Amino acid sequence: MKLQILGCYSATPRAFTNPTAQVLEIKGHLFLIDCGEGTQVQLRRQKIKFSRIKHIFISHLHGDHFFGLPGLLSTFRLLGRETEIHIYGPKGIKQAVTTMLKVGQAWTNYPLLFHELSAVESELIMEDDKVEVHTIPLKHRVYTNGFLFKEKIGERKLDIDAVLNLNIDTCYYRNIKKGKDVVLESGEQIANERLTLDPPPPKSYAFCSDTAYSEQVIPLIENVDLLYHESTFLEQHHDMALQTGHSTAKQAATIAEKAKVDTLILGHYSTRYKDLELFRSEAQLVFDKVELAEDGKEFVI
Amino acid sequence: MKLQILGCYSATPRAFTNPTAQVLEIKGHLFLIDCGEGTQVQLRRQKIKFSRIKHIFISHLHGDHFFGLPGLLSTFRLLGRETEIHIYGPKGIKQAVTTMLKVGQAWTNYPLLFHELSAVESELIMEDDKVEVHTIPLKHRVYTNGFLFKEKIGERKLDIDAVLNLNIDTCYYRNIKKGKDVVLESGEQIANERLTLDPPPPKSYAFCSDTAYSEQVIPLIENVDLLYHESTFLEQHHDMALQTGHSTAKQAATIAEKAKVDTLILGHYSTRYKDLELFRSEAQLVFDKVELAEDGKEFVI
Repeated sequence: MKLQILGCYSATPRAFTNPTAQVLEIKGHLFLIDCGEGTQVQLRRQKIKFSRIKHIFISHLHGDHFFGLPGLLSTFRLLGRETEIHIYGPKGIKQAVTTMLKVGQAWTNYPLLFHELSAVESELIMEDDKVEVHTIPLKHRVYTNGFLFKEKIGERKLDIDAVLNLNIDTCYYRNIKKGKDVVLESGEQIANERLTLDPPPPKSYAFCSDTAYSEQVIPLIENVDLLYHESTFLEQHHDMALQTGHSTAKQAATIAEKAKVDTLILGHYSTRYKDLELFRSEAQLVFDKVELAEDGKEFVI
Repeated sequence: MKLQILGCYSATPRAFTNPTAQVLEIKGHLFLIDCGEGTQVQLRRQKIKFSRIKHIFISHLHGDHFFGLPGLLSTFRLLGRETEIHIYGPKGIKQAVTTMLKVGQAWTNYPLLFHELSAVESELIMEDDKVEVHTIPLKHRVYTNGFLFKEKIGERKLDIDAVLNLNIDTCYYRNIKKGKDVVLESGEQIANERLTLDPPPPKSYAFCSDTAYSEQVIPLIENVDLLYHESTFLEQHHDMALQTGHSTAKQAATIAEKAKVDTLILGHYSTRYKDLELFRSEAQLVFDKVELAEDGKEFVI
């Protein structure tokens, strides 16, 4: 599982910062999470193949989280894309994005499938045999969801030494990995646990932006390996965070600590702060394993 | 008069190029011409004060010419803008842009005035006591206008030596600059030409992008000081230019030569070409004073 930060700053632009966008590589998928203005250029800079993206998750409809979408969809078309793309985002996203494309007769020639969200409880919005994605309802000025990405438990791993020792025919391997026992020609039944090892523990990533401090997310993100939680402000601007529906670094760390996550990544920094290390040190008063998102940075689990 | 190129590449993004956007400083105005994705960041990089922009001219509704508009308008709001902004662009621009803002409840708190264009003949779309702006109908795949920016002839300049020699009272200066004669106490009438010098010749800039080769623009842009004419392709891809409603460098130069402009600026390069000097050398076979647009470059007249 690999997370690439394309942009991690809040709305007000500076000369060399980018608004929110991330790419999560998980079990062969390449998921784009949020798509602020300039995301397509950031994808180029990070040398990410556009054609590998098939699912885009948009947290909410503030510009710094989705204004890059019409441009990216237009570019897909210019590049001759034919495979479908799924977009998950709040109700209204389809109308806004398609109006931008239609007005310039920039029709897509690939299937563009919108999955509009409006539930206020967490829901499963995407699933295949390897991954599932749930919404994490957040508390912001407009309807907003975070997203929980969970690997499914994989097949059991063949214990090569054990199957060779027991002279088990390779035609059984497939079923063994699926958890089945084996009956030898002698009639002896071999329990699956003797032939396999546990699969690697499934990994999980929770994306929580934008949000005010909200303990309601805790049961949804408990024990995740990686939590991105916005920290637009430092505690010195606690009131401003409250007013604007954002969090401080300390609040993000409190959520991480209460949810017993492994690692916390901070981001969505207000551009008023010059030294990002202040976010880390404030958060570390509450929670130890704190990382700072930075445009272009990668996190590998 | 100063022209700043914020972006001058065609639609397909690369890691370090920007789509079309320019800022024209003329008689105290700061006009934004086209607004591709990322324009607000380019404005920051060029250290242009957002509050000085009051008029935005959009040539057509392909994404690489207007997808930066919702983000810029949102930022105006974040920065506490109160003064009005005028947007001139094809019919449909209002619906597309306001839908993007409304869906995220990102209302503007400053007057946002759209002037939608649909005329097929050149028209005067903006005028004050110093400048006038006319459309230049272009020939592209969708409804497209270039823009002609013309300074008005200024007041005559006072010939200080002459007025001092004749002991003319300062209270007459205002009228003299407006072209009036003066009657001395002696009764003698002094013709205005003896007291003033010609005002500096008014400057003009024509922006022509995107367009196929079209001689219909020539009478509209004759003798301008500066012509920006798109050259998406080189002659080797002449057929592609024809197919897509774009021009080659040679075609742009031919228009410049026939319209007897002073200087031609090329731009809107396809990202397939690595060496921009090829555009200059192709154009110079037809027209001598050729400049190459580059992101961040300034042209001063």
